[in-house]
Amino acid sequence: MDRPDEASLADSYTEMHEILMPNDTNNLGRALGGSVLHWMDICGAIVGRRFTRRQVVTASMDHVDFRAPIDLGEIVAVEGYVFDTGETSVEIKVDVAAERPSAGERRETASSFFTFVALDETESPAIVPDLVCETDHERELRDAAIDERRTRRERAPTP
Amino acid sequence: MDRPDEASLADSYTEMHEILMPNDTNNLGRALGGSVLHWMDICGAIVGRRFTRRQVVTASMDHVDFRAPIDLGEIVAVEGYVFDTGETSVEIKVDVAAERPSAGERRETASSFFTFVALDETESPAIVPDLVCETDHERELRDAAIDERRTRRERAPTP
Amino acid sequence: MDRPDEASLADSYTEMHEILMPNDTNNLGRALGGSVLHWMDICGAIVGRRFTRRQVVTASMDHVDFRAPIDLGEIVAVEGYVFDTGETSVEIKVDVAAERPSAGERRETASSFFTFVALDETESPAIVPDLVCETDHERELRDAAIDERRTRRERAPTP
Amino acid sequence: MDRPDEASLADSYTEMHEILMPNDTNNLGRALGGSVLHWMDICGAIVGRRFTRRQVVTASMDHVDFRAPIDLGEIVAVEGYVFDTGETSVEIKVDVAAERPSAGERRETASSFFTFVALDETESPAIVPDLVCETDHERELRDAAIDERRTRRERAPTP
Amino acid sequence: MDRPDEASLADSYTEMHEILMPNDTNNLGRALGGSVLHWMDICGAIVGRRFTRRQVVTASMDHVDFRAPIDLGEIVAVEGYVFDTGETSVEIKVDVAAERPSAGERRETASSFFTFVALDETESPAIVPDLVCETDHERELRDAAIDERRTRRERAPTP
Amino acid sequence: MDRPDEASLADSYTEMHEILMPNDTNNLGRALGGSVLHWMDICGAIVGRRFTRRQVVTASMDHVDFRAPIDLGEIVAVEGYVFDTGETSVEIKVDVAAERPSAGERRETASSFFTFVALDETESPAIVPDLVCETDHERELRDAAIDERRTRRERAPTP
Repeated sequence: MDRPDEASLADSYTEMHEILMPNDTNNLGRALGGSVLHWMDICGAIVGRRFTRRQVVTASMDHVDFRAPIDLGEIVAVEGYVFDTGETSVEIKVDVAAERPSAGERRETASSFFTFVALDETESPAIVPDLVCETDHERELRDAAIDERRTRRERAPTP
Repeated sequence: MDRPDEASLADSYTEMHEILMPNDTNNLGRALGGSVLHWMDICGAIVGRRFTRRQVVTASMDHVDFRAPIDLGEIVAVEGYVFDTGETSVEIKVDVAAERPSAGERRETASSFFTFVALDETESPAIVPDLVCETDHERELRDAAIDERRTRRERAPTP
Repeated sequence: MDRPDEASLADSYTEMHEILMPNDTNNLGRALGGSVLHWMDICGAIVGRRFTRRQVVTASMDHVDFRAPIDLGEIVAVEGYVFDTGETSVEIKVDVAAERPSAGERRETASSFFTFVALDETESPAIVPDLVCETDHERELRDAAIDERRTRRERAPTP
Repeated sequence: MDRPDEASLADSYTEMHEILMPNDTNNLGRALGGSVLHWMDICGAIVGRRFTRRQVVTASMDHVDFRAPIDLGEIVAVEGYVFDTGETSVEIKVDVAAERPSAGERRETASSFFTFVALDETESPAIVPDLVCETDHERELRDAAIDERRTRRERAPTP
Repeated sequence: MDRPDEASLADSYTEMHEILMPNDTNNLGRALGGSVLHWMDICGAIVGRRFTRRQVVTASMDHVDFRAPIDLGEIVAVEGYVFDTGETSVEIKVDVAAERPSAGERRETASSFFTFVALDETESPAIVPDLVCETDHERELRDAAIDERRTRRERAPTP
Repeated sequence: MDRPDEASLADSYTEMHEILMPNDTNNLGRALGGSVLHWMDICGAIVGRRFTRRQVVTASMDHVDFRAPIDLGEIVAVEGYVFDTGETSVEIKVDVAAERPSAGERRETASSFFTFVALDETESPAIVPDLVCETDHERELRDAAIDERRTRRERAPTP
């Protein structure tokens, strides 16, 4: 197999859409936090596989705020991309939005940062490609993700 | 609620991605036809809701060929868009592809055409917006879908 | 393994019943088209395995109209049988009905025709038995299916 | 609503078929006991609704032995029927068999007896129809079920 | 692998908790009997694995009465433990309760007795440890389970 | 309804156990990060309901590291408890461990801190009880959770 030394943010970019079904809702007919976390992780895994061209496993997920509820029957849009790399790992931003088509409305509901580790055929960590950003749009997404992660970590409340 | 008279192909365009999990595979570790059909219908429903800004229900699905298997752990990419409209219905093309990231490979595996009917608050059929195509790319997608549906119906084998 | 040269329509005949559960319904409490398609494919796969005594995979599904909604809690009845064969494939009719026991009512809601391919141990297409119809009832089912498939294909609307 | 005073064993008779999928298997690739129990209860519920033309709820299930394993990919056949009635309840026998089509083999794997209670619109117990057996075959099924239940209860081991 | 000759009731003791979600409910928003049976069997399997330190399979389940409904959104608490052993099998009691936190209420809803068989690496029945009860509480649980099973079997109604 | 002013850590303490089933695993037969996150959130929701005696919704989840993989067929143990409260919210620690019974082994695999908000009947935030710790063990769990959260937040890496 011939794996490239570089991959672009656009190569990794992934969108998922779901309709919020009954089994992913609580008593109030709203999305369970756990279902949203599950979709975010699946999205991150697809992003990581596309970028590294390898099997990837979740190493960590940053703090996540659930900023707005998602109601039964709404469209859940999840998107993610690689914005930074380590030697054998990739840093991925995942955003979740809810759409109520009848209202022409779209609300951001959650976002977080994941680290995924790439594995080779023996299930050992594998070198990942370098991230390249080929367009201004890719560079903006990358820089915004790096800034937001740093800001979030600095403002983490200390009880 | 204020619904527009027109909507564009781009307004309806929807991508879904899944990782093929064990429960959607048969004995051979390949995607069940029924799971692929299920994802195609969900994709069509999201496309239809976004275009009509209403609840939609599946009225029909055209012939579908399963052209290539999808293996456990592969990424399933489903995309769809409105390419034509009736008075209270929309015509939607849905395409399915499989990606094996380690091979940098993408295979078209199935596609079909759905008719979805829009419903108003009393669950009666509701007038849908007219389709507008604002870019050359949208016009190409629309024309290709209309041609392909016509061709497929004409070449349907008669036993 | 000793596989027979012939199998009867009755050998392949299969009935499935489900209660329509919340996760297979949309916002309106009605069956998702995709769930119905999924059950039809599973039914076809059982029909095909029983007839061929082999693993089978879905090759294609014909046009399907969703003629009536199915409501939450109703009984979904799916039945299928082989009505024709190719060299390594079988032609299967699958019908879906909904029952509301309190009303003593049964409604036909969808039907279609599938082609399944039989696979041998190396996952290559395998010769299937010839279809025999041993009773008048089997012959009627077979002839009606062949007629209906031909009629449907001829009347397919051309936009 | 007009409900009949009598219903036949044949009115209640229900067959379900499933393909054993990965999520219903344990580490050894065999059906989980709990999945089999779940299908038996769903089958009993359909039998009870068809016979009583009402909503039914499970009141009890008798002892069940798991006599043989079911392997991944095998066809699971579940069948049930009413063999006796109380004032507001029905007694239902449910049998489970596994088929390995490649071997032309069918094995009985489990069976048990359920009591379901019929509910009216206020969720109170409702009078059920009397059981009638219109054919010799129905009478045989009924008598065999009554005998088997009695025998099983008498031979229940006392530790 | 070094397996102990003895294991205690406390070693096997297992609690599970679930929130009753839509897909495990019927039309009336109450737990399906089959879902409760499924959880009981999973609980029994965990109990059996912990006690025997081996793979276990369900051999039988005793009569179970569903004494009270469980409503959508309630907490389902399932607990189980080994109370007796055979040569290659363990006897397990499983109890189910429902909690409605807003009412500070807990209701016993079902209980039964399972026999699980331990399997070695070749899937043959394997010798299980002897049960030891190290505290008065363990001895009470064991004795109550033995008594209850005997009483239930003696009072089984004969139609 | 009469809700208490105080609740104890022990009132909230909840254990869940699962067997890792195929659909919650990736290609390598290991638990998906998203499935683990889903169970953690469900556990947190049960903890929060028991403590507040109200409906609760996930407001946020802290950083989580996946420290060790969980293999197919292993027992997943999830436990959680309230260790601090706000006016209308509770702070919950959730820990995940994996057990391989044949090896008599238990590994900590993940843990995190959740904030859940309590809702009244109008879905507005509701006052929660004060936390009381009635035993030394409860006080130790509470203090350890407060310390660990503070430490984790302080050592959060800044890229």
